[in-house]
Amino acid sequence: MATIRDVAQRAGVSVATVSRVLNQNGYVNQDTEARVMKVIKELDYRPNTVARSLANRKTGTIALILPTIMNPFFSELSRAVEDSARSRGFTVIFCNSDDLDTREQTYIDVLRQKYIDGIIFASSSLGEEDLAVINENGIPLVVLDRALREGNCSVIRSKNAEGARKAVHHLLATGCRKVAHIAGPQELITAQERLRGYRDVVKDLDWFEESLILPGQFSITGGKGAVQALVEAHPDVDGIFAGNDLMAIGALKALHRMGIKVPEEVSLCGFDGIGATEWTEPELTTVAQLIYEMGARAALHLIDRVQGYTDQVEDLELDVHLIERGSTRRRKY
Amino acid sequence: MATIRDVAQRAGVSVATVSRVLNQNGYVNQDTEARVMKVIKELDYRPNTVARSLANRKTGTIALILPTIMNPFFSELSRAVEDSARSRGFTVIFCNSDDLDTREQTYIDVLRQKYIDGIIFASSSLGEEDLAVINENGIPLVVLDRALREGNCSVIRSKNAEGARKAVHHLLATGCRKVAHIAGPQELITAQERLRGYRDVVKDLDWFEESLILPGQFSITGGKGAVQALVEAHPDVDGIFAGNDLMAIGALKALHRMGIKVPEEVSLCGFDGIGATEWTEPELTTVAQLIYEMGARAALHLIDRVQGYTDQVEDLELDVHLIERGSTRRRKY
Repeated sequence: MATIRDVAQRAGVSVATVSRVLNQNGYVNQDTEARVMKVIKELDYRPNTVARSLANRKTGTIALILPTIMNPFFSELSRAVEDSARSRGFTVIFCNSDDLDTREQTYIDVLRQKYIDGIIFASSSLGEEDLAVINENGIPLVVLDRALREGNCSVIRSKNAEGARKAVHHLLATGCRKVAHIAGPQELITAQERLRGYRDVVKDLDWFEESLILPGQFSITGGKGAVQALVEAHPDVDGIFAGNDLMAIGALKALHRMGIKVPEEVSLCGFDGIGATEWTEPELTTVAQLIYEMGARAALHLIDRVQGYTDQVEDLELDVHLIERGSTRRRKY
Repeated sequence: MATIRDVAQRAGVSVATVSRVLNQNGYVNQDTEARVMKVIKELDYRPNTVARSLANRKTGTIALILPTIMNPFFSELSRAVEDSARSRGFTVIFCNSDDLDTREQTYIDVLRQKYIDGIIFASSSLGEEDLAVINENGIPLVVLDRALREGNCSVIRSKNAEGARKAVHHLLATGCRKVAHIAGPQELITAQERLRGYRDVVKDLDWFEESLILPGQFSITGGKGAVQALVEAHPDVDGIFAGNDLMAIGALKALHRMGIKVPEEVSLCGFDGIGATEWTEPELTTVAQLIYEMGARAALHLIDRVQGYTDQVEDLELDVHLIERGSTRRRKY
């Protein structure tokens, strides 16, 4: 049986274009539309939604696609998703994408064939094409930490820019005079937003320069490397806002190795609020997301859609809050 | 359709007994056997293996039942299971049991109804009855860290007692004169075996007494609490072997709070080899299990059985090795 990908390939257009033709939304050039319609007839292509609603199979299973379960943020999130799904009699398939487009695409194809009831997408690179494939199959979708404006999918995310502003304001309030930012990969919207929040606060301060922003790959190793480069370029830095907690843990280790005292010489603040921020010494100040609530809401809303209790898509921004701990407890003003 | 549980309930016997009658193995009293056979006829009960082999559905899905994905040991293990399953075209359902019998039983029932192809069981309390239910359904099973002698299931575990002996020998070799043990919950065989390894080494040493063994629930909080009690009862303790890394992290924090220097005053060694042992300062010496290999082998062996490449059950003991780090780097002898 022909799929939407077959149609797109034969017509020489993107899957998203075929989707637009099928759903009659968005602009498509007339010639293109005619060509797509011709291929649809030739291949006797029928959108899977029809086949699916005929079979009307429900499997009681949802899928959770995430970068890697080994990042504590995602293991905490997964726990919430599975707890909530279980409370509704659902089981959860989990998929480690490592943020690789190709693997995400393969997962979507596999899950489609298994008649998964819904997908929670917490990985980076859900493109317009993947979204078209998922929509074509009528699979309810909840996306975390993304800002998708098109398509039939719900979005749940945290107030990332606001959280970053809280972090930097806090560092300044405790007496820091030169605050650097270790940033996550800029293809991720969470990383972009946290950088934006940092910029919002510091851009007009006289000490600010671009070289105070360093990449840290959202990893421990990345955090370590960034601090080494930072201290070399800016020996007078006295505050660091790391874009996630893993980078903050790496930064803390690197500072310790270099004999720089936290918080006496450098104050340090992370982002996420994972449990491991309480495992270090000093414990890490961090901007906490409502990780458990994010996972629980995603699962419950998705299952509501699967079971027909709602057909509304949701666009939800969760609050974040600063947890002040030893890594910034320095001076009082 | 009647299940083996219905038969057991009506006959007033355990599921395991019904299983023994069906499979004609193990001793069953004649009267009991007659009663069970009568109920089987009354309820027109047929073992699911038959129904299953008739339908012969394969779903390409295996399940992983673990205590909680939030323990880094299990998130690392899960990553390995999913990577390996993916390489064979399988998806993985994960289940957080919190080591609750009732929840494990519910999971097994749910998974049975979903025609899961196989189960990896990494949680604590798989009883004889659960095993009978799984066997009845012909579902291949791999059990981690358990020593089951009956039943059609493979077992993969680490050399826990040997690892514990390595830890204690190392602490003594670096100069410790009084080594305590923070033990995991004694209903778990891993915890029992590690305690046994500790005892093997210290039982005949003149300083040893039972009060040097403290319970720590395999958790950070448990590790903290144990150290507080320990230092009160034995102010001269100078070495601690924690039965897992989370308890070691908790112990390190408690020692720090009490102003006791690691490793100068107390040396500390954990068990598991989770990534977070490198996040603390000092980094933790630990007995590392081959966590990734354990997960990968479990998944690949299970899928071999699902796909009929082998019908052998496996009983595998993986090596462990000591990783020496800052928390025990004290003196040279």
